[in-house]
Amino acid sequence: QWLLKVLGFDPLLKMADLPSGPLDIYRKKTSFNWKDMLLFIDGEEVLAFKQHVFKTLENDPLFARRPGEDVPLEKMRELTFLRYQQKVSPFVSAAMVNPWKTVVLSDCLGMYDWALGAKFFLNRGMFGATVANSGSGRHNKYVENTENMTTFGCFALTEVSHGSNTRAMRTTATHDPSTQEFIINSPDFEAAKFWVGNLGKTATHAVVFAQLYTSDQVCHGLHSFVVPVRDSKTLLALPGVLVGDMGKKLGQNGLDNGFALFHNVRIPQENLLNKTGDVTPDGRYVTPFKDPNKRFGTSLGALSGGRVSITRMALVNLKLALTVAIRFSATRRQFGPKDEEEIPVLEYQLQQWRLIPYLAAAYALEHFSKSIFMNFVEFQIGLIMRDKSERQAELGREIHAIGCTSKPLGSWIAQRGIQECREACGGHGYLAMNRLGDLRNDNDPNCTYEGDNNVLLQQTSNYLLGWLNAKHHDGVRIESPLHTVDFLDDSQKILESKFTARTMEQCMDSAVPLAAYKWLVCFLLEQSQKRLEQQRASGKDEFEARNNSQVYYCRSLALAYIEHNCLQRFHELTTDQDTPAGLRPVLSKLCALYGLWSLSNYMATLYQGNYLSGEKPPELVQMAILTLCSQLKDDAVALVDVFAPPDFILNSPIGNADGQLYKNLWSTVMQGNQVLERPSWWKEFCSDKPVVGSLRPKL
Amino acid sequence: QWLLKVLGFDPLLKMADLPSGPLDIYRKKTSFNWKDMLLFIDGEEVLAFKQHVFKTLENDPLFARRPGEDVPLEKMRELTFLRYQQKVSPFVSAAMVNPWKTVVLSDCLGMYDWALGAKFFLNRGMFGATVANSGSGRHNKYVENTENMTTFGCFALTEVSHGSNTRAMRTTATHDPSTQEFIINSPDFEAAKFWVGNLGKTATHAVVFAQLYTSDQVCHGLHSFVVPVRDSKTLLALPGVLVGDMGKKLGQNGLDNGFALFHNVRIPQENLLNKTGDVTPDGRYVTPFKDPNKRFGTSLGALSGGRVSITRMALVNLKLALTVAIRFSATRRQFGPKDEEEIPVLEYQLQQWRLIPYLAAAYALEHFSKSIFMNFVEFQIGLIMRDKSERQAELGREIHAIGCTSKPLGSWIAQRGIQECREACGGHGYLAMNRLGDLRNDNDPNCTYEGDNNVLLQQTSNYLLGWLNAKHHDGVRIESPLHTVDFLDDSQKILESKFTARTMEQCMDSAVPLAAYKWLVCFLLEQSQKRLEQQRASGKDEFEARNNSQVYYCRSLALAYIEHNCLQRFHELTTDQDTPAGLRPVLSKLCALYGLWSLSNYMATLYQGNYLSGEKPPELVQMAILTLCSQLKDDAVALVDVFAPPDFILNSPIGNADGQLYKNLWSTVMQGNQVLERPSWWKEFCSDKPVVGSLRPKL
Repeated sequence: QWLLKVLGFDPLLKMADLPSGPLDIYRKKTSFNWKDMLLFIDGEEVLAFKQHVFKTLENDPLFARRPGEDVPLEKMRELTFLRYQQKVSPFVSAAMVNPWKTVVLSDCLGMYDWALGAKFFLNRGMFGATVANSGSGRHNKYVENTENMTTFGCFALTEVSHGSNTRAMRTTATHDPSTQEFIINSPDFEAAKFWVGNLGKTATHAVVFAQLYTSDQVCHGLHSFVVPVRDSKTLLALPGVLVGDMGKKLGQNGLDNGFALFHNVRIPQENLLNKTGDVTPDGRYVTPFKDPNKRFGTSLGALSGGRVSITRMALVNLKLALTVAIRFSATRRQFGPKDEEEIPVLEYQLQQWRLIPYLAAAYALEHFSKSIFMNFVEFQIGLIMRDKSERQAELGREIHAIGCTSKPLGSWIAQRGIQECREACGGHGYLAMNRLGDLRNDNDPNCTYEGDNNVLLQQTSNYLLGWLNAKHHDGVRIESPLHTVDFLDDSQKILESKFTARTMEQCMDSAVPLAAYKWLVCFLLEQSQKRLEQQRASGKDEFEARNNSQVYYCRSLALAYIEHNCLQRFHELTTDQDTPAGLRPVLSKLCALYGLWSLSNYMATLYQGNYLSGEKPPELVQMAILTLCSQLKDDAVALVDVFAPPDFILNSPIGNADGQLYKNLWSTVMQGNQVLERPSWWKEFCSDKPVVGSLRPKL
Repeated sequence: QWLLKVLGFDPLLKMADLPSGPLDIYRKKTSFNWKDMLLFIDGEEVLAFKQHVFKTLENDPLFARRPGEDVPLEKMRELTFLRYQQKVSPFVSAAMVNPWKTVVLSDCLGMYDWALGAKFFLNRGMFGATVANSGSGRHNKYVENTENMTTFGCFALTEVSHGSNTRAMRTTATHDPSTQEFIINSPDFEAAKFWVGNLGKTATHAVVFAQLYTSDQVCHGLHSFVVPVRDSKTLLALPGVLVGDMGKKLGQNGLDNGFALFHNVRIPQENLLNKTGDVTPDGRYVTPFKDPNKRFGTSLGALSGGRVSITRMALVNLKLALTVAIRFSATRRQFGPKDEEEIPVLEYQLQQWRLIPYLAAAYALEHFSKSIFMNFVEFQIGLIMRDKSERQAELGREIHAIGCTSKPLGSWIAQRGIQECREACGGHGYLAMNRLGDLRNDNDPNCTYEGDNNVLLQQTSNYLLGWLNAKHHDGVRIESPLHTVDFLDDSQKILESKFTARTMEQCMDSAVPLAAYKWLVCFLLEQSQKRLEQQRASGKDEFEARNNSQVYYCRSLALAYIEHNCLQRFHELTTDQDTPAGLRPVLSKLCALYGLWSLSNYMATLYQGNYLSGEKPPELVQMAILTLCSQLKDDAVALVDVFAPPDFILNSPIGNADGQLYKNLWSTVMQGNQVLERPSWWKEFCSDKPVVGSLRPKL
């Protein structure tokens, strides 16, 4: 901290001094002190760390942006690797002391380019952390080599024909007691490992998930193994491994996703990551877990790290897109009350309504993603301390329920928000140099990897239905370590409540949507349970009964649960005495707006369950949303300034901090390759014309 | 027709014979004869024409697909130009005899690649047709040269700082009577023409929109001029013209979008497209229009051609995405009632609900886009016949109201539908080779060009409010040439109606959502009017009053109006005696599903206005939607077969007609560039390692 200051990093001075320009008209009208907001959200240490990362990247020619350049796939991958090798690796040790800083580092890298962020996350977070957490002392060398960059790791779970259904993976690992080895084998092309990030070109080692068979041909289920795939000196594939690159993806093309087929590849027995099960030298399978239920809770929780991180990654994309779209909207002028004078498009109700609710969502998700990460850290400490308590297992189940919905919540809001930002910037949003396309393309897989969003939601609705059943059948009190379900215990009372706001002003308090959400979750839980019972009563088996209860019931339930929790946490922040008084008004508006805007997707359900009645409530909610948007529009530029990275990192001429929209746009257009030149193939233009047409006029 | 058969084109035989494979399980369960559907939708002649176009492209090496190849921007543009020059041009004359065939040709080119479709559309539809329709005999040579390909055209309206606000364009055209010329000038960089398709590299001539000034410095408003921009032999820019390429866009990169700045460029006076106004040799401005209202109606209608075409383009994208996603869902198996046997994901309620409503929307839009195109043709015939009647002007206003909403309707459904298809295909949908990314990127500008969707909607709400005012103040009967507003005349009676369906079966009739939509449009019209009056009463000027009535009122009104009209037309088709009896059942289901699914966005409004009451209606609607999805799932594969192009055109291994999902995927992956090779930069992997780390273990 002190050292950073000595080295010349004064985050508050440097990051806060934004260039003056057309955006000043809004910055001067801001209702809060934005340096206070910066400090409140990030704190001085994180701000300094971020600035250090950003500056390091900006000062290195290897990270130079290439406007207008058409970088080939192979080159993108090379650049991403070199950037990782030369600059990112050193940061990691600095960040690793504090888990939150690792997240901040991932944020910073992702803000520069998600392929780089992903390369880091997959090598360290997925390969390194899985080996460290699922292995034992004998695997330390793999972790060290990863840190040294003498080897490079990847995480190989998904197969060509199986993604969501992980239990159906078909790669096998058969123990051979005669040589103390496992034989890794892919039965056919459909069982090839597929989509593995880093495996396309760079990985030397993979954590491979395979069905463990002992030599007696008994299958003991899915386990993970460290499998060398390429020689770390030559990068040539090792014998028996067919490994390759999947080619172009919609985004993140600096990351090399790959596939691998194993043809009876032998690995030492010790390469089994043996935390949940091991094989003795004489070939017997042993597991340290006695209570399979606790083991299950523990392993569910451990899987949540990725999903919690993805929630944050999606948020980063949304922040970048909003920075571009809101600065653009504050400087782009179109039409006006008089013909002579045009007004910024941010002044239009419609533009506010399109963008500002997403800004509110970004603030809600900022606090939410941070606080669920802290929950996850608490859980991980339990894992490290080998906490075998009921609470730790229960915490694992709750974290799983959160991660399975926070990822859909975050990734979908980001995907829709980026699209809205793209459209809100009109044609300029469609120019590649303004980055909204990359953001959309890079965010898109967040909806799919680590579990398809729609499939994941079922995990959480099952969790909630499980609580209801436990209460009904065993009289258990509904109460969880993080208290996300506690209110369900009062379900009967909550279901009797009604929407009571009578004026628009009353609606502008986040307590109003929060109360409505509590009712909504209780209602959807009850309805989902009813629907399931109807299905069962009509003779459907459990598989069918569950499937036929997803749409309108379980799926909505899971989403409403996590939206409620996100709103609840934000609401608590805005009423917390530790939140600076000067920031509370703007945070309260953002919170109310986020709550009302999310809730408005469920108005019909609120009517259906008679929580609402009469014609007034939707109008009150709508007017409250529009009023909040209009009250927040003068703060919108400052609110994006708070989370905007420097221009070099943002990399979008229409979103620069100086607001010189057209100047920045032109200067980037002109840096393009051969902008003003005729095409290299100009001679083709006159050749090969159809002759008939050109003769006709002369006849 | 007969000739085509002689030449060996038998569309019904060849197009109908799909390869057998895993998709057969669905194809065999189809409830209708899909050859009848093919014939009903396209007719024999169009089918033969499509097949001819597709075959011609497939047989030409210039059109070869390049799986896995990383085609640079410059090359993409060259290929698009050459494809246009060598193959597309000859088709055009064949198509031009029948306006619908021109649309079909555009569909086919777009199915191959929208950059090619756009190059054609901009050169012929925008440049050629504008010169032909807005000019006079003296401009015939430009049309002929465009047809001959001796010159290449583009359409230059948008400027850097003005898109939506066309009246604020700042390029000037000043008449110089001394030389009988116009001087075209861009006052500054912000007034540069921007986003002009074909202008980046290939255009030799542009239709430029500029403010016409006579030599007395009087401005006569925006007019269009033919301005030569490049030498047609050398493709070098002409003196005074700064013309260039805008660089990479999110999609359609085979199309060269460009910019141009004019520095006092002199063009002959005759280059003014003089249909709506001309300048005499002595420098006086003259216009043939006496009644400015009629002139306005006429010119509004003429602008609609582009928007009506874009509605169709968006539909083509949706069809392609659905073909991929539905064939994928019918062959991808994941989970199942028993562990051993997995079922196609299309069997899941959730997957059906995600995709099949979009399939219903595609069928609704198929009929809708065709029928509004025919309306537009009727209007254009009036233009050509110089029909100056009140009806023709009224038809122009109505076509304008349709085009301004059909484009948002089509482009947004396609954008959301493609995203849903991408996600529904999981990771495989994220592989570039499967094309869903290109479809999303290529469809995206449909939301923006020819008017931002949100801005366009205001045109239509103004049109509808205009009718209401005319009725209230002048006692006019609400009645339009195409009858899209006639029901509003019964508004009072309709507003008294209620939702009367009492069973799910009753809901499954498209008459139910249709009646609800009529109520909805009347309600939103009344509410919008009230809101506007409130705003005015509170002292807001007209500009503010309109702006503050968009969200929840005018915007929803415009969307509901066009959704009603789309549903109305589809409903009529399903009840028409000319619709083959064998097809009516499946079309009726699609129609009811489209109607209910669209309507379900407005359930809260239906409650609010007391059209619905009690808890039953939403449940009935939801159950009807799910039941229709489930009834249609066995027809879904055949329904996409009807509009799917041949595999070569579709260009998505997971969407091939043979359903050999994994085989096709692998064969395409393996065609990639250097798939199995180590990276060219492999030596970097071992170099430049941080030394500290690698020493540590030895210490």
